[in-house]
Amino acid sequence: MLENPRTPRVRAVAKLAKREARKDTGLYLLEGPQAVREALTYRPDTLVEVYATPTALERHQDIRTLLTDEGIEAEFVTETVLDAMADTVTPQGFVAVARQNPTALKDIFAAEPKLIAICEEVRDPGNLGTIIRAADAAGADAVILTGRTVDPYNPKVVRSTTGSLFHLPVSVGAELEDVIERAHGAGLTVIAADVKGDDLLEARADGALANPTAWLFGNEAHGLEDEALQLVDRALRLPIFGRAESLNLATAASVCLYESAFAHRA
Amino acid sequence: MLENPRTPRVRAVAKLAKREARKDTGLYLLEGPQAVREALTYRPDTLVEVYATPTALERHQDIRTLLTDEGIEAEFVTETVLDAMADTVTPQGFVAVARQNPTALKDIFAAEPKLIAICEEVRDPGNLGTIIRAADAAGADAVILTGRTVDPYNPKVVRSTTGSLFHLPVSVGAELEDVIERAHGAGLTVIAADVKGDDLLEARADGALANPTAWLFGNEAHGLEDEALQLVDRALRLPIFGRAESLNLATAASVCLYESAFAHRA
Repeated sequence: MLENPRTPRVRAVAKLAKREARKDTGLYLLEGPQAVREALTYRPDTLVEVYATPTALERHQDIRTLLTDEGIEAEFVTETVLDAMADTVTPQGFVAVARQNPTALKDIFAAEPKLIAICEEVRDPGNLGTIIRAADAAGADAVILTGRTVDPYNPKVVRSTTGSLFHLPVSVGAELEDVIERAHGAGLTVIAADVKGDDLLEARADGALANPTAWLFGNEAHGLEDEALQLVDRALRLPIFGRAESLNLATAASVCLYESAFAHRA
Repeated sequence: MLENPRTPRVRAVAKLAKREARKDTGLYLLEGPQAVREALTYRPDTLVEVYATPTALERHQDIRTLLTDEGIEAEFVTETVLDAMADTVTPQGFVAVARQNPTALKDIFAAEPKLIAICEEVRDPGNLGTIIRAADAAGADAVILTGRTVDPYNPKVVRSTTGSLFHLPVSVGAELEDVIERAHGAGLTVIAADVKGDDLLEARADGALANPTAWLFGNEAHGLEDEALQLVDRALRLPIFGRAESLNLATAASVCLYESAFAHRA
């Protein structure tokens, strides 16, 4: 049982809340029973260390079973140690360290994807996490992060994906131009979600959404640069039928991704 | 210029962050230039007091013009007073007090609505605010809050509506059974968003979404009670095509409302 929150080991885990430490180690932090359960179910190969309080492990028998099945031993820690490791106020008895596992672009496009979300310069961790979760729910084949989009292994992003980070391939650090070229090579139509685009209602009517599609979403404050818009096949705007000035990026992205998912199955 | 943050007047404004004070006074708190601008544009009749720092009013000439047009005089306050009044960390130079202006159910249904969002027992302020904003964007005619849904005049809800609270009628405190009866009387189909419902893809194909619709959204953790589900015409589930366990309530509600908005215009 780890009892001292001031050891180098505990500090090394806590440091993973910072980008610098994640970059140096290639590791990241998982917090709470849901994240640990999803990692054990979908990507146990990426788990490096699992820490739990005895009470939490007692309460979550399903996690105990998953750990046994995977041959992973959880290390017992006190609440104090767990709090020192975690970024959240309430890690609910579980913290784990996992290896970052971004997917290579070539593997994403080799898998003949039908629906992809590209996030260019998305900066808010909650937005990115919600987009990854919505992409997963809408059955997207991958999420590709380009430009200076927030690190998906940031604890806030991990939390707001509620496990979806383990469900579908996520690619990190590519250049938008390269991604669009590969998307075209794989037969995908690249559609930018942009306020200056055509009305989505038109594309819904003309059947364009039924094509295999890579949606491109831009920065929450400034949208997409003109250079980015010049690379895509089409720009579509989610129409505002009421008086709202705009929709939150993650909400708009969810509607766009579901429109494609529906059109693919209609 | 108000300079003392400890006067009864400043405290009375700050107290509006609490439900009790809002209930006693019928007033609520607006924070930041966007909320004040939207209130001045859409519901200046509800504004009781506007407080601003001289710097903020200097920076936002459009708000100064709106104030002049409406014959409302902003009271100058120091940053310290403003911070004492506000619920947010950064009110960005503006705080206002407004009269709560819920719309009566009979007025909502007398206006021959085509799309309505009913929120039953929605508890998270951010979720409610996002649903009100999405309902506004999707061109819904009203949002109706039933059961113990969070107070829409809670500062966190007001913030996350980003002005939509002033754009469409919001009704508060009705009983669900009464609302559904009135919706039926007004010719609306009442559709519950529920994981136990039929696949939304079916309703999309059979044209059901083209009807005038009242969507019913339930509690983020427990969904809708069986009694509620027995009152509706149909229950639909937003399909999960990937491995995500669920979608966030506000995201799911946004997709449902937009599906109806699109079907109404197809």
